[in-house]
Amino acid sequence: MTARLAEIAALLGGESSGRADLEIRGLATLESAGPHDIAFVANPRYRAQLATTRAGCVIVAPALKDEAAARGAVVVVDDPYLAFARLSQWWAARVRPVATPGVHPSAVVEPGASIEEGASVGAFAFVDAGARIGAGAVVASHAHVGAGAEVGAWTRLMPRVVLAFGCRIGARCIVHAGAVIGADGFGFAPSPGGWVKIEQLGAVRIGDDVEIGANTCIDRGALDDTVVEDGVKLDNLIQIGHNVRIGAHTAMAGGVAVAGSARIGRRCTVGGASSIVGHIEICDDVHVSACTLVSRSIRQPGRYSGAFPFDDNASWEKNAATLRQLHALRERLRALEKRLT
Amino acid sequence: MTARLAEIAALLGGESSGRADLEIRGLATLESAGPHDIAFVANPRYRAQLATTRAGCVIVAPALKDEAAARGAVVVVDDPYLAFARLSQWWAARVRPVATPGVHPSAVVEPGASIEEGASVGAFAFVDAGARIGAGAVVASHAHVGAGAEVGAWTRLMPRVVLAFGCRIGARCIVHAGAVIGADGFGFAPSPGGWVKIEQLGAVRIGDDVEIGANTCIDRGALDDTVVEDGVKLDNLIQIGHNVRIGAHTAMAGGVAVAGSARIGRRCTVGGASSIVGHIEICDDVHVSACTLVSRSIRQPGRYSGAFPFDDNASWEKNAATLRQLHALRERLRALEKRLT
Amino acid sequence: MTARLAEIAALLGGESSGRADLEIRGLATLESAGPHDIAFVANPRYRAQLATTRAGCVIVAPALKDEAAARGAVVVVDDPYLAFARLSQWWAARVRPVATPGVHPSAVVEPGASIEEGASVGAFAFVDAGARIGAGAVVASHAHVGAGAEVGAWTRLMPRVVLAFGCRIGARCIVHAGAVIGADGFGFAPSPGGWVKIEQLGAVRIGDDVEIGANTCIDRGALDDTVVEDGVKLDNLIQIGHNVRIGAHTAMAGGVAVAGSARIGRRCTVGGASSIVGHIEICDDVHVSACTLVSRSIRQPGRYSGAFPFDDNASWEKNAATLRQLHALRERLRALEKRLT
Repeated sequence: MTARLAEIAALLGGESSGRADLEIRGLATLESAGPHDIAFVANPRYRAQLATTRAGCVIVAPALKDEAAARGAVVVVDDPYLAFARLSQWWAARVRPVATPGVHPSAVVEPGASIEEGASVGAFAFVDAGARIGAGAVVASHAHVGAGAEVGAWTRLMPRVVLAFGCRIGARCIVHAGAVIGADGFGFAPSPGGWVKIEQLGAVRIGDDVEIGANTCIDRGALDDTVVEDGVKLDNLIQIGHNVRIGAHTAMAGGVAVAGSARIGRRCTVGGASSIVGHIEICDDVHVSACTLVSRSIRQPGRYSGAFPFDDNASWEKNAATLRQLHALRERLRALEKRLT
Repeated sequence: MTARLAEIAALLGGESSGRADLEIRGLATLESAGPHDIAFVANPRYRAQLATTRAGCVIVAPALKDEAAARGAVVVVDDPYLAFARLSQWWAARVRPVATPGVHPSAVVEPGASIEEGASVGAFAFVDAGARIGAGAVVASHAHVGAGAEVGAWTRLMPRVVLAFGCRIGARCIVHAGAVIGADGFGFAPSPGGWVKIEQLGAVRIGDDVEIGANTCIDRGALDDTVVEDGVKLDNLIQIGHNVRIGAHTAMAGGVAVAGSARIGRRCTVGGASSIVGHIEICDDVHVSACTLVSRSIRQPGRYSGAFPFDDNASWEKNAATLRQLHALRERLRALEKRLT
Repeated sequence: MTARLAEIAALLGGESSGRADLEIRGLATLESAGPHDIAFVANPRYRAQLATTRAGCVIVAPALKDEAAARGAVVVVDDPYLAFARLSQWWAARVRPVATPGVHPSAVVEPGASIEEGASVGAFAFVDAGARIGAGAVVASHAHVGAGAEVGAWTRLMPRVVLAFGCRIGARCIVHAGAVIGADGFGFAPSPGGWVKIEQLGAVRIGDDVEIGANTCIDRGALDDTVVEDGVKLDNLIQIGHNVRIGAHTAMAGGVAVAGSARIGRRCTVGGASSIVGHIEICDDVHVSACTLVSRSIRQPGRYSGAFPFDDNASWEKNAATLRQLHALRERLRALEKRLT
């Protein structure tokens, strides 16, 4: 795949200088780019690399225009990172394998399921009775769409995704391989004979433009539904418990666990491997750092953290051992203070 | 699906008042219930909602009988939560899609496998030679039952569960989508040329009435088996290492990791995202809070915790930085104390 | 399966004593071994069990030779653990179900894919156009090998592994059930209308002799590839972000999360449930303890830790509450010190 610089400049809508007919053969980082690659500088931290990159063209913000133009072709846009994102989409649409519309001969589509125009159902996919696959949607190989489930237009379920019976996902979503949407929430009542299962009678409702990572799990609700609003982005291996509600445009990094009935606001971000306990509320615009346990509701926007600072093992051992006596240390300090007043 | 209140009251065996012919159309929370829904109050915390709920009927404990009856139909039972669990099962049995007995035409059952009466083998399921699927069991779409593996009566393997060769699961279990039972444990001997694999010659043995969450992994043993006793409940994305033993009726929330050869007692609970190191023992009736690393054996029943308390980022930064000097602080305090005596 | 002791001694190349014709029927731990089992003592901690084990033969280091020989048959080798690993492989090759070479009639191999000699493609496996399956390799049931992906000789993809389009894995690797190699990395540019996807144009490149655990995810790179070097061992449910590089012979335990663009050295070990933030570097020979967040680059070999020490809940509560005031405590201590000088 190749493109002319002029074509890319027109796509990005920015001012450009340098040979309009320069042939672009790939997108690359400043570090690895060659004379036919296009790269970008989004972060001033990487400005120094402008002097050394071999990129055929760079996308920069207005502040770096002259510096970048001095070394070769340039496209100037207000937000180089966003421009690069759009360019990556344009490029991918031209180089990626495309799902063939229609139902693969090996797939099983049960009677009563509806497959709308242009949708693709891959090898060994299973679409159960009453399910609806929207126009242009992709149900890739080994995926399972349960009875009565709904897949919105242009949404892609990657290989062996499970969308369980009665669950709904909106338009233009991507669900990566192995994700499980709509398994039972974890609910049991104690009894003298052991745990008694509470059947999970709700489902999962997912909005538009949502992306869900590989092997991530979103459980169905106990009575009401588990809800993921528009534009949410979830990375891999995330656990979303039953009846959680995730507000629009919230993003979570890999390995996060959210316990049942937590309500998370809009435009939040949650760092990798963090956890959120059940039945709490987090307001809009909260940013949780990696490896943090959010154990109480958060009512003020802002950043919250809670990881133990790592250290060389010997130092950690000494500090960790002392930590077990921290309360006692405070009492000793208090006693000293008292004596001295 | 609808039911008369009298039918439900008879099922739950409690005293009831209100119109016996009231038509119940669904189970709901106090908050979302309408005049044809039945709800419950298990926790006195939600007592205030009795005044505002629109539920057609509520299930309550004797202490709330009069208060609940004053507002409408009521079923009085000793344990409303348990009653609700049983009702949810009765309801689900009537509204859930049911697996069709028999082998789906697209499934592959290798010669020498046995499928007992009433069992269901779904689309694209694979049952290898010598495997045994018990009476009434379900092997859902894309599930894999390895050579010689055994699935007990009425157990359900949901879509694309893997039960590897030689592993056994008892009766009335549920294994949710994507769970992997019987992958190799993680064992390697160091050598000058790198890690040398220790083949995992054991298997996994799972008791009766066990529930295993979506994408959870239980590794096969190195020499002896990994064992999960009766009534254990594991949530999603849990990792159980080789040769772990989990005692009967223990429950673990999502994202827990248990390292090899740990032995966990009966009736324990482990909070989400906690970890248990290898080769330790935890006695019966231990409760581990969320995000706790259990790094030593626990010999006394009780609750154990170990999460770093989260805070706004600025406060966390100050405290975390100081934590790295905690041992030095203790020494300084000790020096002060010495000087003052 | 049975073997004569002489055969095993010859395999391990060690000095042996005891009946050469002793029939060995299994490998076992010292604790569970019977008179026809062979066991080993790798750790002097287990020396005491030599007196009580019923094992037919034990593999020991020279230091324990006499003690072991006094009780029965013995094989003496320099490294009993390594010898046992090799024996386990020899044994497994004789008792394990073997994949049948050839393509299962239910599999789908798209035109243009190449399956080399002796390779096995299992039930419902899907091999897309242009993919290459090396000699003797195994693509087990429900596995997905994407367009143009490459599987090296003798590598085994276990049931329902996904190796996405354009990704490559070397020779003699094992990828356990449910692992996803080559899903999109997690990259989005913020925009006023929400997150804009950055297409992940790189792939995943995996070396030789790598083992990857069940349900583990390795994301494809944004521009360059994500790289896993030779001999790396990853346990279950691990998340490897885009453009991570993992050096040769590094091993990671279950539940680890590595964020994007982290570079990890050779011969490192990472304990279970630990996390590594993005864009940092860890040098060779670093050992990270369980449940540690590595939040900065590590430039010196050694052991690093960062778990909160767990405690009974009451003690933890007191210490955790005090921890929130730690910085203030330091200030109070400083004030006292000042007053006293």
